[in-house]
Order: sequence, then structure tokens, then C-alpha cells
Amino acid sequence: MRVLWVYAHPEPRSLNAALRHEGLRTLTGLGHEIRQSDLYAMRFDPVVDRDDFGAGDGRLIVGDESRRAYEGGRLSDDIVAEQEKLLWSDTVVLQFPLWWFGMPAILKGWFDRVFVKGFGYGVTHPDGRTKRYGDGVLSGRRALVVVTAGSPATALGPRGINGDLEELLFPLLHGTLWYAGMAPLAPLLVPGADRPTNYHQTAAKLRDRLIRLPDEEPLPYRHQDSDDYDENLVLCDDLATGESGLSVHCGDRRSAVRDFSPNRG
Amino acid sequence: MRVLWVYAHPEPRSLNAALRHEGLRTLTGLGHEIRQSDLYAMRFDPVVDRDDFGAGDGRLIVGDESRRAYEGGRLSDDIVAEQEKLLWSDTVVLQFPLWWFGMPAILKGWFDRVFVKGFGYGVTHPDGRTKRYGDGVLSGRRALVVVTAGSPATALGPRGINGDLEELLFPLLHGTLWYAGMAPLAPLLVPGADRPTNYHQTAAKLRDRLIRLPDEEPLPYRHQDSDDYDENLVLCDDLATGESGLSVHCGDRRSAVRDFSPNRG
Repeated sequence: MRVLWVYAHPEPRSLNAALRHEGLRTLTGLGHEIRQSDLYAMRFDPVVDRDDFGAGDGRLIVGDESRRAYEGGRLSDDIVAEQEKLLWSDTVVLQFPLWWFGMPAILKGWFDRVFVKGFGYGVTHPDGRTKRYGDGVLSGRRALVVVTAGSPATALGPRGINGDLEELLFPLLHGTLWYAGMAPLAPLLVPGADRPTNYHQTAAKLRDRLIRLPDEEPLPYRHQDSDDYDENLVLCDDLATGESGLSVHCGDRRSAVRDFSPNRG
Repeated sequence: MRVLWVYAHPEPRSLNAALRHEGLRTLTGLGHEIRQSDLYAMRFDPVVDRDDFGAGDGRLIVGDESRRAYEGGRLSDDIVAEQEKLLWSDTVVLQFPLWWFGMPAILKGWFDRVFVKGFGYGVTHPDGRTKRYGDGVLSGRRALVVVTAGSPATALGPRGINGDLEELLFPLLHGTLWYAGMAPLAPLLVPGADRPTNYHQTAAKLRDRLIRLPDEEPLPYRHQDSDDYDENLVLCDDLATGESGLSVHCGDRRSAVRDFSPNRG
């Protein structure tokens, strides 16, 4: 594999840093190639603005301007560098602490800035149809999200008070990775991260997921290019009939690798 | 009302800017007081790091360090200024374009940095129980999210391909606002924003929501301090029996103000 490891934590002596070290060591030991984006260490700028696009002072329409800059080779160097790493990779690992039930801003802004129109979205087939949800510039790549959380696993389970982890991460897993063509795997949750009690067990789980990364079944999100959605991009009546909510976009509702037993926290 | 209007768009000549102007004019005309956080104009820094906390060079544990800085009066001035506006307000409007099905990084980082431990979370009752989900420093405040999206309304509806808007925003509405004690209203979606066809109709919808803001029923999220959750913070078996997913955390599943008819896009 050619793995791009994207990492967003401010402290080099953290649990996250230890797990990253373990992960990189595991992948290297297996003979895989690695490149990294350590966003805090890079002081990555997460704020989209006109400087990204070499734009003048006309009215900034982000999508249009980003596409022109992408196609015209005028994107900021730091954006181009990240796009090159993504195109080099066949596998992406995204590792971050869950802050307010989402990505830290520095990582959210990595997507905002790097996944410009023409690269992350707005890519069309020759007949004009838009490629998305399972198809796009980044298709063929797998993505694994590794996330630490202060909360116990049960509180992030299917009926836990914080909300189901896979659904909390739906804007990333489905709305960004899958949208852009990548195949996300079930996220790896490291719960109870404020009071880590068994680091070796956690590291073993991470190693196990990384070893199985090339073979694991991705989340079974539906393809836009199927007959599952109608002309308004609404799920057809005969699928998940009478149901609504994010889970209807999974052909098979529950992935096998999750473990929300109470004693895991 | 005392309204804090938080705004995250880079272009002063955008649809978002026009809607903000309309909204502020409406609120002023109704006699309400207004303060603003125009995050792009303020060049707000969205990245949590040790400088936020006047911390030394010891290992940074974000939650612990942020609580110490908050209680010891050592938080960055820009964070303190935002907390003061929040405490002054009784109503918060959050306006942003939907980027990758979430907030622009500059707004996500506003929460990451301003909602520190002891302020946005980690607040305890005298008996040691944690205040959250309907209870906290910011309780009693209402919040309205106003969001523009390129997508048509149907694609963000209950069975739309992008996912249900209220569930996509669950990490913000439930996991942040409600977590910190605020009462979020149903979000106002401005769909088809890349090709706005009827600005006057959109502006009228915004005015209508702002006029009704003080009286509208908030989203019926469950309180942690109810008997709805068990000791593992999992929803009790006799509620939404056999169901899972984010919607189980709404006592009453569907709000009245949403409108996902196809012709609204």
C-alpha cells in the first residue's frame, strides 16, 4: 500500500501521538510506503479565502474560483502539495481526537481547502452527469478514520446519548470521503481516551485494523450511479421502505467490526 | 432579545452577506439588541493550541489545560471576548455555508476554542454529576442555524442522497449547542444557493423565522437529566424500542417548520 497518514493533534506526547507512532511502525514493518500530513506540525492553514486561488478582488464565489485556480494551476502551493500526496496514495488514514463530535478545525479546513471543485467535487462524466458518491478523482482509494474520544464507547453506540459514532461521522465518511470517490472503512474508535487504562490493548486493536486494511470490506454506502436514487436524488420508495435517517444510505445497515460493549470504555 | 449573530463567510458581496444584512435589519427593526462575530472579518484563529491557555511547555492535555486557563483567567483575549458575547446574549444565530456537510473550519474552530472545559463542557452539579444536554453554563439561550447549500432541498431531506440536514448537523445542534445547555431550533436551510432564483422569497423566509424566533418550539432533544438514559448513558429500552440512529434522541421525531418539497430548491 501507499498510505497517506493525516494527523491532527497539537501535542507530540499525547495518546494520539503514541498511537500514530505505533501505526506507522506497523505499516512500515509490513512493507508499505508512507507519506504524512501532520497538520499541527505543518502549521496548516485551515481557512478558505481568496489567497488560496490567486484570485483578484472581484466577488469570490468559492466553487467557481477554486475550479478556475485548480484547472489554471494557480492554487496555493500548500493545497497542491496535499493533492499530490492524495493522488500518490492508495490508502488514507485520518487520525484525530473527536472535538465537539467532529474533526478539529485544522482537519476540517484541510478538506475545505484541499478538496476544491474539480478535484473533490464538481467532477463530471463526458455526458455531463456529476461524479460523486463512489465515483470521482479519488476513487479506488480506501480510507480509515482513527478517532479518540473522552466518552465511553456505550455513549457513542447505536443508542448512546452522544449519538452513534458512524452517524456522527457521516458528513466525513459519506459526505466527504465517499462523495469524492473514496471507500471508507468502519472507523476505529478509541474511547475513554481521557483516562486510558490499557494502552497495549488499544495499540493491538490499531495494529489489527492496519494489518487487515487492504482486505476489509468498506462501509456499504450506496452508489449514486445505481438505481437506488430517483431523479430528485431521493432514495427510491422500494428501498428501506418507510424509513428515514442517515442509515438508509447504507445498503447493509451495520458493519461487523464495531464493538460497543460496555466494558470497552 | 439580545442576539449574538455569528457569521462565517469570506465574501462581503455574497448571498450570505445579503441575508445577514436582511436579518440584522429585521432584528433591529423589532427592537432587539445585536452583537456580532463576523469570523472572517475578525480573522478569527480557529486552531486550538497551547497559546490559547498561556500554557508552559509541559505536556498539553487540552481539556485540563483549558479548564485551568478558564478558571485562572489566563485564556487568550480573543476567546474571552467571544465568551462574554455569549454570556451577554439570550439568543444566538449561526450563519454559514454548508461546506462538506458541516461548518467551515473557521466556525468549527470557534467552538473548539471558545467552548473550553468549565464553560462549554465539564461543568458539574454540586453532587458531582456533569451538566450537559439541556443543562450548562449557556442554558436558557436559544440558537438558530441558518445554512446555505448548493444542493437542492430534496437531496438534504429525510431520504435525500446527502443525508437528512438535521442529522448532518446533529454534531452541532445536539452535540454542541444542546450539550452546552442551549436550545436549538430547527435549522433554516437555503438550498440551491449556487443558483439563487428567488432572493425575495428566501429573505422573506428568513424574516419570518426571525420574527417567530422568541416563540418557536426548540427541537425536542432529550435531557440527560431525565429518566430517558440508563447508567451507561444509553437510551432506555422502553423508548424508541428496537430503533437506533440519531433520531432516537428526539422525543418527537419530526419538527414542523421543515419543508423539503421538490420545488423549494
